[in-house]
Amino acid sequence: MNRRTLLKTSLAAGTFTQLPTRSAWAGNPAISPLVNSDSPNGFKRFSLGDLELTILSDGYMRQSPVHPFLAPLAQPNEVKASLEAAFRSTDSIDIAMNIGVVRSKDRLILLDTGMGVFAGPTQGNLARSLAKAGFKTTDVTDVILSHAHTDHIGGLIDKQNKLVYPNAAVHITKVEYEFWQQATLADFKKSPAYQMQDFVTQTIANTQTVFKLLAPRLNFIDLSKELHGIFTFELAPGHTPGMILTTIRSGSEELMYIADLIHADVLLFDHPEWGFFGDTDLQQAVASRKRVLQQLSESKTKAFAFHLPWPALGHVRQKGTGFEWVPEVYATP
Amino acid sequence: MNRRTLLKTSLAAGTFTQLPTRSAWAGNPAISPLVNSDSPNGFKRFSLGDLELTILSDGYMRQSPVHPFLAPLAQPNEVKASLEAAFRSTDSIDIAMNIGVVRSKDRLILLDTGMGVFAGPTQGNLARSLAKAGFKTTDVTDVILSHAHTDHIGGLIDKQNKLVYPNAAVHITKVEYEFWQQATLADFKKSPAYQMQDFVTQTIANTQTVFKLLAPRLNFIDLSKELHGIFTFELAPGHTPGMILTTIRSGSEELMYIADLIHADVLLFDHPEWGFFGDTDLQQAVASRKRVLQQLSESKTKAFAFHLPWPALGHVRQKGTGFEWVPEVYATP
Repeated sequence: MNRRTLLKTSLAAGTFTQLPTRSAWAGNPAISPLVNSDSPNGFKRFSLGDLELTILSDGYMRQSPVHPFLAPLAQPNEVKASLEAAFRSTDSIDIAMNIGVVRSKDRLILLDTGMGVFAGPTQGNLARSLAKAGFKTTDVTDVILSHAHTDHIGGLIDKQNKLVYPNAAVHITKVEYEFWQQATLADFKKSPAYQMQDFVTQTIANTQTVFKLLAPRLNFIDLSKELHGIFTFELAPGHTPGMILTTIRSGSEELMYIADLIHADVLLFDHPEWGFFGDTDLQQAVASRKRVLQQLSESKTKAFAFHLPWPALGHVRQKGTGFEWVPEVYATP
Repeated sequence: MNRRTLLKTSLAAGTFTQLPTRSAWAGNPAISPLVNSDSPNGFKRFSLGDLELTILSDGYMRQSPVHPFLAPLAQPNEVKASLEAAFRSTDSIDIAMNIGVVRSKDRLILLDTGMGVFAGPTQGNLARSLAKAGFKTTDVTDVILSHAHTDHIGGLIDKQNKLVYPNAAVHITKVEYEFWQQATLADFKKSPAYQMQDFVTQTIANTQTVFKLLAPRLNFIDLSKELHGIFTFELAPGHTPGMILTTIRSGSEELMYIADLIHADVLLFDHPEWGFFGDTDLQQAVASRKRVLQQLSESKTKAFAFHLPWPALGHVRQKGTGFEWVPEVYATP
């Protein structure tokens, strides 16, 4: 069985689970429980020049099996060996969902919004996380959408189809907006997800629903200009056609929000070419992933990612023919 | 200036700061603060066979400069290059203080107790952390002391000289107890700390004070026997003469509490031979560090450490002529 056949077979068999079923830190059933583990509402707060940045959690997605969700172009034994070398479970992986909040003297900007109305039981925690960190939804002035997948835009609307951030402008690239407005299943022929027609169709429908409600608030990002004197953007197409990298700058400090450039701190840093199930154009995403990882390893710019392990702040370092993620560490929770 | 001279000069100059002066996650003073960053009372809870394990934080110590507190036998430029390669500050390092709690059907066991009565402003949080995790001090049945340094025994007594865990037996090796009971400055000739007479004298006094109050509760560990069907021990001398490694076992699962075998996830994994300021016998500690890191990398046993970055759970992997720390990762806070 070659890689492509394997991939098609596994995907067609519907082996992916979108919704995790239990906490990664469940108590031991053998003895009576004390209080549950920490709530998922913790946050990290730090300065970047004159800005205050806060990292919040929307929750996580448990993926079982790991392959071919991650690394569809790798052989199963390569994935297993790579996970074992990293001391990780070979049965499942928890994909984090981290959301950045940028606060300046007169702006409060969200970087994506989490699963929101589309959330499963371990997701959709952004509203609680915001409140715990001292933020009000009415104070949010801007939302920057890295791209329009369900887990990034679902937090913009509530179950009554009301806007969760009533005073926020919502920024997105025009190419991203137009892709989803016109998308059909045929546009996903270069994606491993193409075999899962229901999944693709639902994703398109979710996005169009949110876009319709958001229409009056949408603003197309000018890739040649700075936004609010804080943000600059560049396209990194492949995961979606209009996905952007967002560089946050203040004084001499900067941080690049790489969004969904890469979905795990294992497998895909070593082998960016192994690909990801959810990429709209698998090979274009590989090219963007390689290019940006190379750029980050050379510039030594600090990065923040939507799906890497909490709180997803760190640096990229070259390692052999690939790369490695060097996460920031903390002395306390 | 050779390494030894440099070390003596730096230590004699009193360049070590025992107490950090500000939070690692202080808000940005340029804009008015919202709520402060997370409290230091978070915890991690997980199962190990039939046991429930909880990791708590007692706080942290900020060390500035990093060298020669860490890696006294390295040259300053080697330390700087190593920190830079790991994307770390070359000015200071925050040394975590993590405390494990083991719960079985009939026992509640603490692994060391933190700074307690000797705590500076960013330390001594164990009591709050215990309460937040649902534990009562009166329910603690046992305290296992890895060794008798201030940051491990200070939590045993309060400011009124009362026992914080009134119902707990306190386990320690006989060699550790007898060393500190008879210790004088002369016993620290093989330690980089020898130059700091006041520090050494104070450490001895602290330990003797706690031992005196604890006397009726002390139990000497039998290194040839299992304790409560859960713990086995082995000596790893050097940091102190009687420091132990504690292996926690239940069913087919195990975790080794390595205590103060190593004080940072950088520098000393790559170069265990660079040593640590606080080791009582610098070269004996290097030998123990090398031996145990080798053993952990071969057995692939999961480790828990007192001073590594929160929550200090992970594995040791060989890397070149040295080692690297592979921390566990989490999808949420």
